[in-house]
Amino acid sequence: MKRSFIETKPDSHFPIQNLPYGIFQLSSESPRVGTAIGEYVLDLSLIEQAGLLDGTGVEGKNIFSSPTLNPFMALGRSVWSAVRKKLQHLLDENTPDLRDHKELRVQAFHLLKDVTMLLPAEIGDYTDFYASKEHATNVGTMFRGKDNALMPNWTHLPIGYHGRASSIVPSGTPVRRPLGQRKPKDSEYPVFCPCTQLDFELEIGWFIGPGNTLGEPIPVHKAEDHVFGLVLVNDWSARDIQAWEYQPLGPFLAKNFATSISPWVVPLEALDPFRTVGPKQEPEPFPYLQQGKDGSFNINLEVYLTPESSGKETRITKTNFSYIYWSIAQQVAHHTITGCNVRPGDMQASGTISGPNREERGSMLELSWRGSQPVQLNDGGERSWIADGDTLTISGWCQGDGYRIGFGEVTGQILPAHSETDILGNQVAVKI
Amino acid sequence: MKRSFIETKPDSHFPIQNLPYGIFQLSSESPRVGTAIGEYVLDLSLIEQAGLLDGTGVEGKNIFSSPTLNPFMALGRSVWSAVRKKLQHLLDENTPDLRDHKELRVQAFHLLKDVTMLLPAEIGDYTDFYASKEHATNVGTMFRGKDNALMPNWTHLPIGYHGRASSIVPSGTPVRRPLGQRKPKDSEYPVFCPCTQLDFELEIGWFIGPGNTLGEPIPVHKAEDHVFGLVLVNDWSARDIQAWEYQPLGPFLAKNFATSISPWVVPLEALDPFRTVGPKQEPEPFPYLQQGKDGSFNINLEVYLTPESSGKETRITKTNFSYIYWSIAQQVAHHTITGCNVRPGDMQASGTISGPNREERGSMLELSWRGSQPVQLNDGGERSWIADGDTLTISGWCQGDGYRIGFGEVTGQILPAHSETDILGNQVAVKI
Repeated sequence: MKRSFIETKPDSHFPIQNLPYGIFQLSSESPRVGTAIGEYVLDLSLIEQAGLLDGTGVEGKNIFSSPTLNPFMALGRSVWSAVRKKLQHLLDENTPDLRDHKELRVQAFHLLKDVTMLLPAEIGDYTDFYASKEHATNVGTMFRGKDNALMPNWTHLPIGYHGRASSIVPSGTPVRRPLGQRKPKDSEYPVFCPCTQLDFELEIGWFIGPGNTLGEPIPVHKAEDHVFGLVLVNDWSARDIQAWEYQPLGPFLAKNFATSISPWVVPLEALDPFRTVGPKQEPEPFPYLQQGKDGSFNINLEVYLTPESSGKETRITKTNFSYIYWSIAQQVAHHTITGCNVRPGDMQASGTISGPNREERGSMLELSWRGSQPVQLNDGGERSWIADGDTLTISGWCQGDGYRIGFGEVTGQILPAHSETDILGNQVAVKI
Repeated sequence: MKRSFIETKPDSHFPIQNLPYGIFQLSSESPRVGTAIGEYVLDLSLIEQAGLLDGTGVEGKNIFSSPTLNPFMALGRSVWSAVRKKLQHLLDENTPDLRDHKELRVQAFHLLKDVTMLLPAEIGDYTDFYASKEHATNVGTMFRGKDNALMPNWTHLPIGYHGRASSIVPSGTPVRRPLGQRKPKDSEYPVFCPCTQLDFELEIGWFIGPGNTLGEPIPVHKAEDHVFGLVLVNDWSARDIQAWEYQPLGPFLAKNFATSISPWVVPLEALDPFRTVGPKQEPEPFPYLQQGKDGSFNINLEVYLTPESSGKETRITKTNFSYIYWSIAQQVAHHTITGCNVRPGDMQASGTISGPNREERGSMLELSWRGSQPVQLNDGGERSWIADGDTLTISGWCQGDGYRIGFGEVTGQILPAHSETDILGNQVAVKI
């Protein structure tokens, strides 16, 4: 098994087999591109400037001095692959170039705990899908009953919607509980107040590479050439606001206040050993959605909830990305079949990932079955929805033979809502 | 009445009272900011470099040499207002500074017909609302029947959804008919084919100025400070794709293939004389949506359809922006009440603008009542939906006393769909 001169434990998320890309900042220096290896981040701008990446297609571009990954994402699969090979060679335990270059090593390696991780890209458009059949069925059952759980269109196309790009934040950013309108069951009128059903959504997201010209769809068999890499996504949701607002144009304010992502983008190529077959697709998809190869990935996913009061964490979800019905390639092909253009740095996400069993559900809505079956916590408490002060953490990894391809984590703590008085400068009456 | 040394006819869209901002390109020179006056575009980068805008707050910034309006949009209302006053002074028939500066005049003025207009801004996020009660009622009646026409939430909040920013194109860009799935009434399965119900949507859009910090809502009484200016919008729509895909997350592919906008951004300040009261809002909105002043504008809007075969245009719609139920300020306040951040260059749009009478409807869906009442054309033809080769043009203006504040136009021609063979490299069977 390939090893680096930077030692990593078997459960490390960042062995030499992974080499995810991210944007890091060291104190007040300008943000730039790094890769994670063990407990360290390697400053790729210095590696590039030292000429160690010559011959990969990035030379002369200062691509890793950029404060975003967009320029690198735009270069495409052959360059990504060449850079990855070169980095794996440079970090190999038997390669002296970097290993024995004391001065460069001191300058280029920093402890992960000493750097701040920023958003990996400037995200032009964010698209959120709805690709878990279990999730769609659970939600449909709760809102429309067992008989109309799954919409007739669901098995024919990957349902998705446009999300809000401006409010995507990196792991660790606190999230303010939103204010909004909801309609109590027993009331004729809606009320305006802080969200009472705050939720998370466990998702996997991917960043788009070169992309396509407006009017020219991306064929499904070429779709993965436009997928740079994957991250963990928590698509925070306000279920009470969503239930009241979503007809007929879909979720809007219920989803626009924050979406948290993990800062390290795991290259699609690093996930290739964990490629697996997804759920059987019945009916057979239209040809424009037939990928012709296994399009799913075996990624273990866990969700932890930690109340501020006790500080004790509880694992509330343990599931797997391979439950997703529509593959990444199918979702990209569907997105562009109208000619819609996708651009470097665009982010797309799978939608909530749920499995067949209760502990495999990827949202509080499903875990507590809309509040009717509260989730029990290790500190003796329980949750139907996320409370102020709660910290929600998603972790994910692929388990190899003696190593892991990890995603790190995406975490965020909920801050109490603003008072209407603070917002409006005058008391807001609640209409009942 | 204020007059410029650049003469303008009474029906000109661009008198000295307007002074819209846009991004123009002269042959192969770099795109930059200009304002329209009569038949001319004034190169503001040269005016700025000549020091003629000193004292407005832009000096030293080269803000008008930028290829987008984003930097200017970010400066806020006081700077926008100062620059506008200064430009109106410089262009006044009695001000010699520019009028008598022969050399600068030759360099800075170009005929509109000699320049290419580009997108006015780099659009981060695009949000589309649904703010016309007549439109929402018409659509609801067609899809859900008269009794459930208007959703119960509609009169309590401005319904909206996230749109696709990447496919927003400037006026004149041809639009390719999209491929997609639709479900014929008489069929158990969907079919995959070119869109058979291609539509336009007559809308007004606005560009966001400074914007807010994530987590900090914009109070409704301050919302207009974040509105830079307005444009005409044609939100092209595929109704057959929309009807099949939109449940439960809203329109996605039906709207993501193209949105066309007029290139000149009319400053909100130029529209102040045309401020008017909007429709009575019943029930009274929550305090966070109470604007406390007239928030609507009297903007005349017309839509023309011109078949390629005859070249004869027919005016198919004549309506007014003041029919919009929710004001721009209310829509901005609602959008951010959750804490969602809006950024300089974000675009928001009103949704289809329809009036109470048939000729005031802002989409083919409504004009032809879903195809049951085809629209008669001047060339003897008729349309239920938009045909290949058709050119759709939207025009808009405010009528002052002896002058107009015009928006120019947004136009686009429909190109025939790609064949599935071209897209996939192999024949796509249609599943029936």
